Amino acid sequence: MTIDELQSNIKFIVEIDKLKSVYRQTLLTDKSRYEGDAEHSWHLATMAFLLKDFANDPNVDILKVIKMVLIHDIVEIDAGDTYCYDVIGNKDKRVREEKAAKRIFNILPEKQAKEMLDLWEEFEEMQTSEAKFAASLDRLQPMLNNYYTEGISWNKHGIKVSKVIERNKHIKEGSPLLWDFALKLINDAVEKGYLQRD
Amino acid sequence: MTIDELQSNIKFIVEIDKLKSVYRQTLLTDKSRYEGDAEHSWHLATMAFLLKDFANDPNVDILKVIKMVLIHDIVEIDAGDTYCYDVIGNKDKRVREEKAAKRIFNILPEKQAKEMLDLWEEFEEMQTSEAKFAASLDRLQPMLNNYYTEGISWNKHGIKVSKVIERNKHIKEGSPLLWDFALKLINDAVEKGYLQRD
Repeated sequence: MTIDELQSNIKFIVEIDKLKSVYRQTLLTDKSRYEGDAEHSWHLATMAFLLKDFANDPNVDILKVIKMVLIHDIVEIDAGDTYCYDVIGNKDKRVREEKAAKRIFNILPEKQAKEMLDLWEEFEEMQTSEAKFAASLDRLQPMLNNYYTEGISWNKHGIKVSKVIERNKHIKEGSPLLWDFALKLINDAVEKGYLQRD
Repeated sequence: MTIDELQSNIKFIVEIDKLKSVYRQTLLTDKSRYEGDAEHSWHLATMAFLLKDFANDPNVDILKVIKMVLIHDIVEIDAGDTYCYDVIGNKDKRVREEKAAKRIFNILPEKQAKEMLDLWEEFEEMQTSEAKFAASLDRLQPMLNNYYTEGISWNKHGIKVSKVIERNKHIKEGSPLLWDFALKLINDAVEKGYLQRD
C-alpha cells in the first residue's frame, strides 16, 4: 500500500465516524437513548463469532460475515436509517443507498472500494450462506433489544405480532435454530404484553 | 451447541449491550457527544481489515485481531473506562478489569469463556503480532478523533505533546508505517494549536 493509499484509508476511517451519529429506532437495553448504527454493527460482529455454530451452512466463512456486518450500514451515513416497518421510506431505500455506497466506498483506493461494494451488495442480495447468516443476526439483535425494553419501540410504532414474524422470518434461512429461538421470544413477548396481537 | 449453551450466549449478548453506555474521553468527530466503547470497538474492527497490509507481521491473523478489538473493552462494563492519562486510575485498573473479565466472560459456556479470556489476556499482554497490531489501532483511532475535534479532549485534560508520544509510541511495534503517519499527525496538531508543546 502506498502513502496515497494510506491517506485514502484514513479519509475513509474519519468519514465513517459519522455512522456513530446515525440513530436507529431500537433503544439500548438501559433505555438511556436510541442505538447508533456503529454500535449496532459491533453487536452483530460479536454475535457472528459467538454464534457461528448456529449458521445453517457449517462451512460459512465467518470472517466474511463479520466484514459484512461491520460495513452493512455505512450507506446510512448519507441515506439515513429507514425503519424496517416504514412502507413509504422503503420504496426508494435501494436507490438512496446505492448512491451512498458509491460515494462513501469510493473514498477508498479502487481495489478496496470494490471489495466493500461487493460485500455490501452480497449482504443486500441475501443469497449466499454468509449473507443469509449476517441477515439472521441483523434481525435477531433488534428483537432482543425490543424484548428487553418491554417492546417500547414496537408499541410506539403500532407494530403487531404478524408484522414482526413477517419481517424476521428470514432468520430461518441463515439459521433454523435461531429462528426457533426467535419464535419463542416473540410468543413470550406477546404473553408479557410487550407485543400486541393483530 | 445445546439449547442451554444458546441461552448462555443470549444472556451474554444481552449483557454486553451495556458496553454501549460506557463512555470514553474521546469526542465523536461531529462533537455531538462522547464516544461509547461499543462504537469505538466497531471502528477498530473495521480499521483492522482495512489496514491489515500495514501490520508489521505480514502473516498476522486478521480474524484474531478483529475478535480481540471487538471484545477488548467488554471488561469496562464493570470496571469503567480508565482515561489513558489518569495516573491514579491506572494503578488498580488491572485488578478491576480481571475481576470484570471473570464475571462477564463466564456468562458464556466454558469453552467460549476460555476463548474470550485468552483473547483478552493476549491483547492486554501486547506480545503477539495480533495483540501488537490491535494495540496500534487502539492508539491510532482516538488520535484521529482528537485531531479532527481540534484537540478538545487533550486540552481539557492538559495533555501535552510528550505525553501523547509516550502513550502512543507502541503503535510502532504493531506497524512502523502507522507510527510514521501518527508522528506527522502529532506534529501537525502542534502546528495547528490543537496540542500544546511541553
